Amino acid sequence: MTALDDLPIRDDLRGLEPYGAPQEHVRVQLNVNENTHPIPEAVATDIVTALAAAVLGVNRYPDREFTALRDALAAYLGNGIRREQIWAANGSNEVLQHVLQAFGGPGRSVLGFPPTYSMHSLIAAGTGTRWLTAERDAGYGISAETAVAAIRREHPDIVFLCSPNNPTGTPLELETIVAAYEAHAGILLVDEAYAEFAGDGPTALSLLEGRPRLLVSRTMSKAFAFAGARVGYLAADPAVIDALRLVRLPYHLSAFTQAAAVAALAHAPEMLAMVEDIKRQRDRMLAALPELGYRPLPSAANFVLFGGVTDPKRTFRALLEQGILIRDVGIPHHLRVTAGSEAETTIFLDALSRTDNS
Amino acid sequence: MTALDDLPIRDDLRGLEPYGAPQEHVRVQLNVNENTHPIPEAVATDIVTALAAAVLGVNRYPDREFTALRDALAAYLGNGIRREQIWAANGSNEVLQHVLQAFGGPGRSVLGFPPTYSMHSLIAAGTGTRWLTAERDAGYGISAETAVAAIRREHPDIVFLCSPNNPTGTPLELETIVAAYEAHAGILLVDEAYAEFAGDGPTALSLLEGRPRLLVSRTMSKAFAFAGARVGYLAADPAVIDALRLVRLPYHLSAFTQAAAVAALAHAPEMLAMVEDIKRQRDRMLAALPELGYRPLPSAANFVLFGGVTDPKRTFRALLEQGILIRDVGIPHHLRVTAGSEAETTIFLDALSRTDNS
Repeated sequence: MTALDDLPIRDDLRGLEPYGAPQEHVRVQLNVNENTHPIPEAVATDIVTALAAAVLGVNRYPDREFTALRDALAAYLGNGIRREQIWAANGSNEVLQHVLQAFGGPGRSVLGFPPTYSMHSLIAAGTGTRWLTAERDAGYGISAETAVAAIRREHPDIVFLCSPNNPTGTPLELETIVAAYEAHAGILLVDEAYAEFAGDGPTALSLLEGRPRLLVSRTMSKAFAFAGARVGYLAADPAVIDALRLVRLPYHLSAFTQAAAVAALAHAPEMLAMVEDIKRQRDRMLAALPELGYRPLPSAANFVLFGGVTDPKRTFRALLEQGILIRDVGIPHHLRVTAGSEAETTIFLDALSRTDNS
Repeated sequence: MTALDDLPIRDDLRGLEPYGAPQEHVRVQLNVNENTHPIPEAVATDIVTALAAAVLGVNRYPDREFTALRDALAAYLGNGIRREQIWAANGSNEVLQHVLQAFGGPGRSVLGFPPTYSMHSLIAAGTGTRWLTAERDAGYGISAETAVAAIRREHPDIVFLCSPNNPTGTPLELETIVAAYEAHAGILLVDEAYAEFAGDGPTALSLLEGRPRLLVSRTMSKAFAFAGARVGYLAADPAVIDALRLVRLPYHLSAFTQAAAVAALAHAPEMLAMVEDIKRQRDRMLAALPELGYRPLPSAANFVLFGGVTDPKRTFRALLEQGILIRDVGIPHHLRVTAGSEAETTIFLDALSRTDNS
């Protein structure tokens, strides 16, 4: 039998393990920040109708410029954003990969502020971009001063900020984004995957005008309950979109992806109605966890990171034995839990209250 | 307004144009080797049913290991191939990108034999892999001796062979593949995107046993009329699949892609029935073109490259004015045309017969 090490793989891949949140099938899955609410039936019907129409022409290559999807995304984002400012790909991971292929890569660097979305450093490695890190303030925020000092010290080609941040849920002030943008001549990407859960909080979309090096990425996986459809996107100056066109594989978005996403975006109000319920469950956890002796961090996302866990691995296992899957993100004495439906949240809190934390 | 050159894009991207076969809407599109036959209605119904089921769970991430799809592809390929030997991605372009990310990249090289599939060199560039080239024999074939001499001269880390070759349609003997495999210690990838149109011709799949460095890529875009669905795949040793798992973005295949492809593969016989008609149209063109004064090359694919064109750009334009889109692949005095339906082939041949070639 041939082993991986017998093959001429790249030296920098030797010994690595593939990314892998467990895909276990348990009754309550609150580990990967999915939207646990299924798509409303009326919306699902429209999506199926759109997919059926796409099947009829699936023998042809899809629209390489995904024009209808870019129109729908621009309309959804508002803020005066036009089609020419929109990019999309198979999940925001692929969007970020395109950004690093165009502006990063060998000989270039990207600065992040851990703990942050774990794929940021993996996508940097996959594109040969050097991953630089800087510390956050106490409480996991990033002040304008902290961001500027890190950028001046590290001289990165690209800066990644995550707002709200994953896995901490921490929101980010626009002041920090503006200061980071002005602190260097490189690309600043703000990952707003969870922006819809921040309520009327500030969005970096409002800063795009006049800032051609600012990129704001989003996803349909969370607020739109579309994780299975793989649709990430980005808004930026039209010149940035031209750059991304140079590195994407042609026809990267399938006809099914384009059709389903356009149909879902036409129902944005119904899809976003689920967001309000999810925020209620998040706030319920933020209120209940201290009563159980844990210390949740403030969260503007659809998940809560909570401290005060004596032994995260033991608590993780105790919950899993009861059919509840949450996430150990590797921060000592902390665990992360997704805000699910009302029933799932009740099951989680009840189970946690019965879990030994001594 | 910001121009692309005002942005800090990578130096190696400056001045490049994005890949772009024209996506013009004309009555006869024979330019990108699509299967011009729509999916049979009974198959389309099953695909829509599978997609509808996928919509119900689309709020969840898709199966990261696409197990059902790998099972279906292994069963389709036969040759004793098992699930553990199958990889898939969004089009064979992404499959090849994964291969170069795992085994190529900065400091490594890939050898190709132009004229060949134009994306091979572009994917090499996109992954930082040096693109080496060697000449084909007269008539565009590659003998075992030619392949071995080129490999010994260039010392590539990876060799790409294309069988049948695009854009020439030339088949490749298994003898060449075996000799190329044995001529070096690196990866040998055989791109069999058009293999189903070669009839009972030899396939490199039969060579996989005992050759862990041999990779055979395929696509559902052509024989399965699934260009819009973006499903490419690859068969190789299970250790190769482990290597590709290290470089793919997690959840790279959407729930829709997986569901639709599995449904289509369950109808392989009906889908492949179209292949026979396409081969008849190809053979019709191979017979008719000499009568019109052109010199078609032997083709084992769903397209024909023909020489004897006095001015390819003029002939291309003359056909386009009549609503017929074919492809100028940049080979002097040659044009490439896809074998379409019987009616499309008739329209093309009639129009060509009326076109001035003086």
